Amino acid sequence: MSRPQTQEQAVDAEGDSSLYRNDEEGTQSSHRMLGFSDALLSIIATVMILPVTHTEISPEQQFDKSIQKLLATRIAVYLMTFLIVTVAWAAHTRLFQVVGKIDDTLALLNLACMMTITLLPYTFSLMVTFPDVPLGIFLFCMCVIAIGSVQALIVGYAFHFPHLLNPQIQYSTHRALSRQHVLRLVLRGPALCFVAAVFSLFFFPMSYLLMVTIIFLPHISKAISWCKDKFMGPREPPAHSVESFNIDLHAPLSKERVEAFSDGVYAIVATLLILDICEDNVPDPKDVQEKFSGSLVTALGAYGPQFLAYFGSFATVGLLWFAHHSLFLHVRKATQTMGLLNILSLAFVGGLPLAYQQTSAFARQPRDELERVRVSCAIIFFASIFQFAIWTAALLHQAETLQPAVRFGGREHAFMFAKLALYPCASLLAFAATCLLSRFSTAIFHLMQIAVPFAFLLLRLLVRLALATLQVLWGLRPWHPQPCLVEPEAQSQLLPAPC
Amino acid sequence: MSRPQTQEQAVDAEGDSSLYRNDEEGTQSSHRMLGFSDALLSIIATVMILPVTHTEISPEQQFDKSIQKLLATRIAVYLMTFLIVTVAWAAHTRLFQVVGKIDDTLALLNLACMMTITLLPYTFSLMVTFPDVPLGIFLFCMCVIAIGSVQALIVGYAFHFPHLLNPQIQYSTHRALSRQHVLRLVLRGPALCFVAAVFSLFFFPMSYLLMVTIIFLPHISKAISWCKDKFMGPREPPAHSVESFNIDLHAPLSKERVEAFSDGVYAIVATLLILDICEDNVPDPKDVQEKFSGSLVTALGAYGPQFLAYFGSFATVGLLWFAHHSLFLHVRKATQTMGLLNILSLAFVGGLPLAYQQTSAFARQPRDELERVRVSCAIIFFASIFQFAIWTAALLHQAETLQPAVRFGGREHAFMFAKLALYPCASLLAFAATCLLSRFSTAIFHLMQIAVPFAFLLLRLLVRLALATLQVLWGLRPWHPQPCLVEPEAQSQLLPAPC
Repeated sequence: MSRPQTQEQAVDAEGDSSLYRNDEEGTQSSHRMLGFSDALLSIIATVMILPVTHTEISPEQQFDKSIQKLLATRIAVYLMTFLIVTVAWAAHTRLFQVVGKIDDTLALLNLACMMTITLLPYTFSLMVTFPDVPLGIFLFCMCVIAIGSVQALIVGYAFHFPHLLNPQIQYSTHRALSRQHVLRLVLRGPALCFVAAVFSLFFFPMSYLLMVTIIFLPHISKAISWCKDKFMGPREPPAHSVESFNIDLHAPLSKERVEAFSDGVYAIVATLLILDICEDNVPDPKDVQEKFSGSLVTALGAYGPQFLAYFGSFATVGLLWFAHHSLFLHVRKATQTMGLLNILSLAFVGGLPLAYQQTSAFARQPRDELERVRVSCAIIFFASIFQFAIWTAALLHQAETLQPAVRFGGREHAFMFAKLALYPCASLLAFAATCLLSRFSTAIFHLMQIAVPFAFLLLRLLVRLALATLQVLWGLRPWHPQPCLVEPEAQSQLLPAPC
Repeated sequence: MSRPQTQEQAVDAEGDSSLYRNDEEGTQSSHRMLGFSDALLSIIATVMILPVTHTEISPEQQFDKSIQKLLATRIAVYLMTFLIVTVAWAAHTRLFQVVGKIDDTLALLNLACMMTITLLPYTFSLMVTFPDVPLGIFLFCMCVIAIGSVQALIVGYAFHFPHLLNPQIQYSTHRALSRQHVLRLVLRGPALCFVAAVFSLFFFPMSYLLMVTIIFLPHISKAISWCKDKFMGPREPPAHSVESFNIDLHAPLSKERVEAFSDGVYAIVATLLILDICEDNVPDPKDVQEKFSGSLVTALGAYGPQFLAYFGSFATVGLLWFAHHSLFLHVRKATQTMGLLNILSLAFVGGLPLAYQQTSAFARQPRDELERVRVSCAIIFFASIFQFAIWTAALLHQAETLQPAVRFGGREHAFMFAKLALYPCASLLAFAATCLLSRFSTAIFHLMQIAVPFAFLLLRLLVRLALATLQVLWGLRPWHPQPCLVEPEAQSQLLPAPC
């Protein structure tokens, strides 16, 4: 959850940190507060998977309608929470691209904003449990309006004390205009929510429709502007909007905050696994006496499959983080599409505790073995394929988004390709194995999961070998890294075209 | 969980991040991996409070021996986990002060290390549930030995490829000596654990003793060296140990990693609160039909006290974070004592979900109201008094540890004092109120918690007023901030004395 600093913050952090706290009227660099907010939001987004995994189905009980409904309810709450928290997080990122520094009042207002965001999962629980009662949607709207009000307060406060603003806006001649623009962005959602709240009093299906609009608003507005550009030709940006461009909803997200948010999700997922182990897999002293004649080792032996599942799942979470980390090391800038794909990937990463619980519970409830493995494979596949998609999306604008080493023809390109393709391929393979091999089992699946780290270590070797073989087959000169041939051309794409 | 970068990383992060990934032999700056490790470790340390808060005591059931024992067991697991994870975290911090950069192999080794650390809570669960069976302590020892082996591998690997090392060690002439020194630090604990594992096979109480020694090893060795200095006079450091000094166990911890770890703890604690709300406080559709004749609003009204408790607890967690954030903004360097006090404070912050659960459960089980409030007050008091102690410890070496503005006589000194004293005073006040006022209730307690943020906003005003009043009473010239009078003197203490 760490992230590199902006230039200014970086200077603050060097050696003696006396610059770290800007003494002018008690302002402070905002980076620690943003890190804390990222941690909080990523944990809230992910932690709602816990009620899903804790849905107990006892061995005798049939997987009947009521259980199905409960599980579906909880999965819906998880997904809606994940989605809305990422939207709130993106808005928070935008807001603090405008507000560059904070003081005590802003820090407290930010905490109030966080508190309101944490209430959103509860409103979803109400909505999903009582789909016919408009109270859930009404409370949701009230929360969004409260968040919007607090954010409007933050904007108003920051523009009232302009030394808190991003220097680019602070010294702009069109500050009043920027303020209007930011306020409009911040209050657009709450305004729609106000309408939705009114509708919820007499015709609540309309409210749900409006809620969906709010969640997808950034993407809808992007699609609209794309269509406009397509059919009416690209508009000339009006002169005064140049300053406000960097707070535009379509500007790339801060790569550092994307990393911080992702780290939070991976960290909490890895931790939820051990929580389950500690709660469920400590034998009862009475049972040990009665069933295992006092031998704790034998009693623990019965949990063997669960531990295998734990190691396999942890390896998967850890290596998906590792792939994400490797990818973002080579990313210069995260475009909005990459941000969206990253969030989709994270939503499935957040589902990994469910995958773990499915395969580890098999030892207790030995039925549907292959179905359980298939669910796990599907979750891992989607988590990793969206990671792969981030890279593909980045390659489409590689000059802007990627470091030279991983662009087409770059030294690390093939290796990165192999790294990101490993999990989609492995999970597809395991899925296929469940269909073809009748003897495939959860144990084999977990052993596969544990074997993948070694595949990562072997991968560099294999990729080199494969490339060398290709070169030999093509009868060309032996393989040499050739970033220098690519870089100047790629670099030139980065420079703005002369007008 | 963000943190400012070392100078080198900061340069990497500036503008075009092409320097970010050091192309020399695939090495990478380690900061994101460290951030992820901090997040993971802080969440593991804190999440074991969940089983404590989930210990269900039904209204009919008496608070009998078996429940007491279960609760005590779980609290013991929480505290032991918190302690050992912070020890592991400190060792990890030390290790990566030596290893400055990482490559893929080191990243994977670090993940293996993290996986082994996540298993420690489970060994504690076994130890506490089966105190008479040596298996728990044996597994604990095996985990520590595994962690030590992985760390030794990391050290060996980094010294084999010296470009991965901290530049100071990389270019040192005594690199072999440093390696020996680091390996000794890393393997000291595992060696003791090996002895403990052997003892666990025939005389396990000795193993427990050795385990305690390992946990307190850094503090014991510090105490021994302090005693040596005291009674035998300070030793001349041998010439060649100068390079290895910065990896010494007594050197200050990296302030940035202290902040990152603390942020993780505060973030997970804030999130565990809403998890409880979403799991427990969504009414059952059948109940709503039967008991509240279909009115969801009435049904939710019954949960009013829980929501009040939620807002109060969130405000407390948020403001304790805020106080921590304000304090560390003014800290230059975190000494080992400050690190220890911070960890003690965090251990009680991790207990806040228990405080929340105690007071919010009162609505369901209306008995022992004042005892519940007292437990909450005690937890908040200890969390905040240790924060205050960090500041006191910092003031003892203020020239080294604090920014000029908060030192004695500094412009912000009085305000910081008031900020950090607010929670200890408020919690003492509430505790006293439970003893003196028979009408004191959980509702009043939560309202007090919610009122504190406004006290923070008023505080600056009040401190100014109080200082002005003091000045007037003393008949001196009107109050002016006088940092200039203090700073030069304070700064001079920073300069090394001429030899």
